Amino acid sequence: MKVNLNTRAKRVEVHDAFWRTYMKLVRDQVIPYQWEALNDRIPNASPSHAIENLKIAAGEASGDFHGMVFQDSDVAKWLEAVAYSLETDPDDQLEQTADEVIDLLGRAQQADGYLNTYFTIKEPENRWGSLMHNHELYCAGHFIEAAVAYYNTTGKRKFLDIMCRYADYIDTVFGEDDSKLSGYPGHQEIELALVRLYRVTNNDKYLKLSQYFIDARGNKPHYFDEEREKNAPGVFEEMVQHFDHFFEYNQSHKPVREQDKAVGHAVRAVYMYTAMADLAAETGDHVLAEATKTLWGNVTQCQMYVTGGLGSSVHGEAFSFDYDLPNDLCYTETCASVGLVFWARRMLDLEANGAYADVLERALYNGTISGMDLDGQKFFYVNPLEVQPDAVEVRPEKGHITTERQNWFSCACCPPNLARLIASVGHYIYGSKKNTGYVHLYIGSEAELNIASQNVVLKQASNYPWDGDIKLSVKPEQAAEFTIALRIPGWCREATIKINGEIFDTGSNIDKGYVYIKRHWTQNDVIEFELPLIVERVKSHPKVRANIGKVALQRGPIVYCLEEVDNGSNLPSLRLPENALLQSQFEPDLLGGVTIITGEALKPKANENQLYTTSDPEYIKTDIKAVPYYAWCNRQKGEMLVWMHEK
Amino acid sequence: MKVNLNTRAKRVEVHDAFWRTYMKLVRDQVIPYQWEALNDRIPNASPSHAIENLKIAAGEASGDFHGMVFQDSDVAKWLEAVAYSLETDPDDQLEQTADEVIDLLGRAQQADGYLNTYFTIKEPENRWGSLMHNHELYCAGHFIEAAVAYYNTTGKRKFLDIMCRYADYIDTVFGEDDSKLSGYPGHQEIELALVRLYRVTNNDKYLKLSQYFIDARGNKPHYFDEEREKNAPGVFEEMVQHFDHFFEYNQSHKPVREQDKAVGHAVRAVYMYTAMADLAAETGDHVLAEATKTLWGNVTQCQMYVTGGLGSSVHGEAFSFDYDLPNDLCYTETCASVGLVFWARRMLDLEANGAYADVLERALYNGTISGMDLDGQKFFYVNPLEVQPDAVEVRPEKGHITTERQNWFSCACCPPNLARLIASVGHYIYGSKKNTGYVHLYIGSEAELNIASQNVVLKQASNYPWDGDIKLSVKPEQAAEFTIALRIPGWCREATIKINGEIFDTGSNIDKGYVYIKRHWTQNDVIEFELPLIVERVKSHPKVRANIGKVALQRGPIVYCLEEVDNGSNLPSLRLPENALLQSQFEPDLLGGVTIITGEALKPKANENQLYTTSDPEYIKTDIKAVPYYAWCNRQKGEMLVWMHEK
Repeated sequence: MKVNLNTRAKRVEVHDAFWRTYMKLVRDQVIPYQWEALNDRIPNASPSHAIENLKIAAGEASGDFHGMVFQDSDVAKWLEAVAYSLETDPDDQLEQTADEVIDLLGRAQQADGYLNTYFTIKEPENRWGSLMHNHELYCAGHFIEAAVAYYNTTGKRKFLDIMCRYADYIDTVFGEDDSKLSGYPGHQEIELALVRLYRVTNNDKYLKLSQYFIDARGNKPHYFDEEREKNAPGVFEEMVQHFDHFFEYNQSHKPVREQDKAVGHAVRAVYMYTAMADLAAETGDHVLAEATKTLWGNVTQCQMYVTGGLGSSVHGEAFSFDYDLPNDLCYTETCASVGLVFWARRMLDLEANGAYADVLERALYNGTISGMDLDGQKFFYVNPLEVQPDAVEVRPEKGHITTERQNWFSCACCPPNLARLIASVGHYIYGSKKNTGYVHLYIGSEAELNIASQNVVLKQASNYPWDGDIKLSVKPEQAAEFTIALRIPGWCREATIKINGEIFDTGSNIDKGYVYIKRHWTQNDVIEFELPLIVERVKSHPKVRANIGKVALQRGPIVYCLEEVDNGSNLPSLRLPENALLQSQFEPDLLGGVTIITGEALKPKANENQLYTTSDPEYIKTDIKAVPYYAWCNRQKGEMLVWMHEK
Repeated sequence: MKVNLNTRAKRVEVHDAFWRTYMKLVRDQVIPYQWEALNDRIPNASPSHAIENLKIAAGEASGDFHGMVFQDSDVAKWLEAVAYSLETDPDDQLEQTADEVIDLLGRAQQADGYLNTYFTIKEPENRWGSLMHNHELYCAGHFIEAAVAYYNTTGKRKFLDIMCRYADYIDTVFGEDDSKLSGYPGHQEIELALVRLYRVTNNDKYLKLSQYFIDARGNKPHYFDEEREKNAPGVFEEMVQHFDHFFEYNQSHKPVREQDKAVGHAVRAVYMYTAMADLAAETGDHVLAEATKTLWGNVTQCQMYVTGGLGSSVHGEAFSFDYDLPNDLCYTETCASVGLVFWARRMLDLEANGAYADVLERALYNGTISGMDLDGQKFFYVNPLEVQPDAVEVRPEKGHITTERQNWFSCACCPPNLARLIASVGHYIYGSKKNTGYVHLYIGSEAELNIASQNVVLKQASNYPWDGDIKLSVKPEQAAEFTIALRIPGWCREATIKINGEIFDTGSNIDKGYVYIKRHWTQNDVIEFELPLIVERVKSHPKVRANIGKVALQRGPIVYCLEEVDNGSNLPSLRLPENALLQSQFEPDLLGGVTIITGEALKPKANENQLYTTSDPEYIKTDIKAVPYYAWCNRQKGEMLVWMHEK
């Protein structure tokens, strides 16, 4: 067994004002709401039927299966979110409810270990019959993730044992032996889940099964071709038809080690890349590591929105091609940004490189949490960067965009995915490797890290992301020499570090976005880390057609947008002079307390009426106000714009 | 019977180098090619079957109908193009072929006058059963237009008589009497055709039938609602489903006099507006005239591309909403621009106003002829203003765009529509009203106009559109006082006029874009009209999101574009400095002889690699070369761009 290149904190408590608000929402709103939804108790919502499906599969209720073929995964993601929430906010009643669901899962599990309500109830003869479409392995993966999380939080083995039985059974079905199916999932997820299962169980079988799924993918003859010859077209067949290379949709167009551009369904892609990074870290497979890094480069340098959104096309909820990042046609599913956070974290495990943490932070503070309103009650599936309600209404190619967050979705993948991310945000802050403890994110928290073979407690406090003054106390069990590595965010022009009040010269101590502070640490050492937050004008690569001549405003990790409620309609006609001063101020009563950006822009005088003219429109000065992108659409429906024209 | 407000020239011969080239293409390429197509003799093309359908309907062949429900209209448009071509280029053999087709039409006509091969062959019991979808009246309209044109050119009555019989029969079917159907066409066309039929026959019945169709449209209870209750969904049902207000698709959502915004299928719309203008001119209906002008204002000031393209949405081939003019998603069907020319001409008949002629000229020199290649052999149905081949390939919402002109289309409406326009371009140049002769367009030609009750021959020569020096000789039968009105194009900053070598002071003689020269004209008078052609940067109304910060280059009536073959890829990343000098020069060997525009722009240095950065990309100077938009894609496939970013 090889070790992680970079291990995670043993314990993290999040105290951060920003994230505690979100975690509280997840605990008080999302988890209870989803529980009601799973039990079909939401008035005027189409019933989830997910718990009922389990009861029917367990023989404790009668009726038919209802919902998506992957309906089980909603229960899994709920349980996973519950597990993380219990970690930070113990709640006996919630834990008891979860235990009851786990008991039900146990009863719904078949004698051979199989656990999937759709096939148990509806098509028992068709188990594994259409891996490309039917999401059985996907659902299994989510249950495994949930089981690992629940075990980690509660120490209770029941759920873990259920999922080990299921994984053991899956291992008898799939693999290279001629007696087994040589298939792999149409929707990746189990690959990363099996690595997590391996990490808590130390059972090599799970690591190898994950490896098998990754290694078998895209081999010729193509498993899905063989499957399609046997099956009638599945429900997703139409969705993927337009892909010239059909299998690009689910990244099975070639073996993963040969893939160098992100293609197809964005969530499937990032889940797969996450597993690839995991496996590379666990096995030391350099070819796999390099392929993963190449894909990372392609995604983050050619196909990622400034919000950390992924998937510029609704067709297949997919990547399109390099630099094709339209702001008003994108898909940018909340789940894809959540998956990007997962992947970035695995890349950090592979190598401490600020580029990974920068993307992680970008997605975390922008394109993920934009998926939920500030009350935790409504959700965006699609997160566009420019919205014109008229266009959404009239142009069918924008029909996938909703101009307001929705209560819930019939395909409810995003809300619980976001919930499990938010509830586990503490897992993303720290890391350690041998004699070095890493601080990847600036989130108020206390953590226990294993550094230089001892427990070191790190405690950080700040008013991040609104303020860049971070205080970090380092408390080793006993004074010793070791290294604390602080990430210098990519957006930061000049960081200042003081240790116990004295300036620390970062000079030659910076490597790949981290400043390495190696010294003899004692129990009362305090690092003061000052990241000046200034309003930046972000520009896109000139090949991004949609953003030529435009800037996005960013302050620290927060990307801003203009909303009609603050700036009137026709937002794209506002022009920001290149030399316009932009100021920021914290507004405690706005949108739950946010720093806004204000400045003077130009807007065309209303007297313009010619459609085409050779004279410039006459511009007048106007005050503009930008709010954090994640918080848009929390006041009223209207236009929104991230990329504004300069003048 | 009321008279036209503005009558047309009696005879026009086009000598113009620019247009004669196109007319020759129509005569030598398009008409013969389409004749082969109509007879299914084009290898590797899906057969038209249009002539065969006529033979089957005439009982002279066996087999089933094939093609679109409106397949007959291809024959009609071909005959109409032939009629115009014969007018300028007599051709006995072609005329004989046309006569034979007309004879065949006569034999395919039913005893009661009905003439439609689809219903005669396939569903004789369903005549007029689904006016919304079935295009019977549309096909009738095209045949009527062809018959009128053929009669005007040849003086032969046979075709006209066939169509009078059909129109007489239609008049017995439709109307306000309780005994008649209260319907009207799903695709407008017959309305304008009936006015033309009225004008050559002086039979009021046809004018009144046209008026009936226009007046009945959109009345409640809605005829199409009643029809839909009776019928199964037609072939176009799906296409129109996304229209919130279903009947907006074919402009029957309300009575035409209450319509103030262009909505729905663009070709249907402009054909209807054309008929509205015709009827307003013929009947003096001021309410109808005002409604038509309001719609004209909406189309040309809020929904028209700079090329004269109409229809910004593929969904329903339709208008979308004011200022929504995306350059890369538009439909801008060739037929819609052709229809805009028809409409503009009728508006000029209604009122001599340069605004109408400006739009006519814009569409004529850009968005119509862009639909055909310079060999007259390939055609665009859709005329986008920005093309990125990768995006067309990958993004299904751009699937309606072809990156190269196509040989022919299964729905072959555009090529023959363009052919009939080009062949009749002489009809658009002149007009007269009482004592005034109008010159609307600068196209080398000789025409006979009725001015002040005598024949006046106007002869103009120029190298327009490449050169703005126009020489116009005025030859009245006898010297007399009358007025010659010359249009001063909207794009012209300062026109100079000399009469017999002496400057004419345009001062107080300009009204609505025309300079009125009232004098005693003799047989040797010569007007020299000088329109300085300078390269203009055209800007859009600031509400046009797609064009903010961008300019289109225009010189005279010609709109320019950048092509990859001249300027490399990533065209939108080229930035045109606000003060960059732009020069023009005529290139006799390029694209059949065109004036190009050259200048120095900025392009990003290739060393840029960050997707997002706070620094500006480094720009270097680069030469650019713009070619006329209409001539794009005549060398090789690649990117194209009309609207370029300024810097």
